[in-house]
Amino acid sequence: MKGTILLVGLGPGDPTGLTGLAREALERADVLGGYDGYLDLVRPLFPDKETFSTPMRGELERCRTALALAAEGRTVALVCSGDAGVYGMAAPLLELAGETPEADIQVIPGVTAALSGAALLGAPLGHDFCVVSLSDLLTPWEVIVRRLRSAVLGDFVLCLYNPASHKRRDHLRRACNILLEAGRAPETPCGWARNIGREGQDQGVLSLEELRSFPADMFTTVFVGSSATRRLGERLLTPRGYRT
Amino acid sequence: MKGTILLVGLGPGDPTGLTGLAREALERADVLGGYDGYLDLVRPLFPDKETFSTPMRGELERCRTALALAAEGRTVALVCSGDAGVYGMAAPLLELAGETPEADIQVIPGVTAALSGAALLGAPLGHDFCVVSLSDLLTPWEVIVRRLRSAVLGDFVLCLYNPASHKRRDHLRRACNILLEAGRAPETPCGWARNIGREGQDQGVLSLEELRSFPADMFTTVFVGSSATRRLGERLLTPRGYRT
Repeated sequence: MKGTILLVGLGPGDPTGLTGLAREALERADVLGGYDGYLDLVRPLFPDKETFSTPMRGELERCRTALALAAEGRTVALVCSGDAGVYGMAAPLLELAGETPEADIQVIPGVTAALSGAALLGAPLGHDFCVVSLSDLLTPWEVIVRRLRSAVLGDFVLCLYNPASHKRRDHLRRACNILLEAGRAPETPCGWARNIGREGQDQGVLSLEELRSFPADMFTTVFVGSSATRRLGERLLTPRGYRT
Repeated sequence: MKGTILLVGLGPGDPTGLTGLAREALERADVLGGYDGYLDLVRPLFPDKETFSTPMRGELERCRTALALAAEGRTVALVCSGDAGVYGMAAPLLELAGETPEADIQVIPGVTAALSGAALLGAPLGHDFCVVSLSDLLTPWEVIVRRLRSAVLGDFVLCLYNPASHKRRDHLRRACNILLEAGRAPETPCGWARNIGREGQDQGVLSLEELRSFPADMFTTVFVGSSATRRLGERLLTPRGYRT
């Protein structure tokens, strides 16, 4: 019997960020798998479910375990923070499963940090935007630089994931410098959101120049405005142009 | 007494796409407002709530009504399809409300079509991506062209909103031509998703060359792969590079 793998985006953190479909998928699963920090978010909802976890960066191992369990006919939910498809487990799982997967694979979308962070800040993503990860663990830094420069050329709002980690403390500053060199104005309204939907949730608005020295961590999502983005008190908005 | 305006993203359509927070916000509201087609999605959940609606493109009128109700001390939920911040009501409402709004305004994020469409197609947004609307109702076409070209330069995956309407039947073809001229390969894997989370939901995978003549409508979301995007049967995936 063919098993099932459900790739479930949990949203920002708190179980109130789950969609109805995501909750149903978790209920339906025999086994819940994922990074321990994410599993902890849903364990209280399903204390009796079987679980398996792997440490951060154990993505491929996690996918292989899920595929092996599905090959036994079981229904496995692989949980991801935010959305399962945006820098999540959906791509590596589908890649490993190949063109004719031996499991029924379904992706259940969730609210990714670009959306939950933007909501805390107002409406920075009110018009066209780019999402760029500053992690160079799996992407050459030159590719990231090219994307940042292109985003400025296109006057996109930018949402930056993984702005920093223990090993990459200066990535956000380097990214800001590239954006400034490419012509984005130092006074461009920017924002950050941290621990979205979790304990210690916080957010703030600042200029691109100020963002250069902002102490982002791996739980921070950063927003850089386009030429149309405006600051309204402690909020950001990028109009679609209703007034023009 | 200061009232409250809750900008609520409903997700793709069906009430199972609502997050817990969105559902709580709708419960909490005295009045539900929005475009009729979106209100219809939640009316069955709250048949006794007061509602107000305006036709498509009545966004500013809707915002003014919400602000007027909040000025009376009421709690208003303005509902949006997908996410309230992505081409939604959050930006015009915040703009109208100004720097010191007379209402407590909160944005409740939802699953936007980029995420729900991507989930149907596998994992096209597994790496950096841009979201671009092809509607030139409020944006000059030259700005759209510049964004499409920049997205190619940055080798971004593209998610296209509003690929067509009754008055803009050829926008998707024109956008494809621009992407091809800018250097994106004709065989680039692309995809589309239609009526996501609603009756008639459908999706498909095709090449950029084929996308030129795809009959998109206003309920379609389109995905154009980057140079790394691959087709796996009827699915798309953009790897983060776990194997490289």
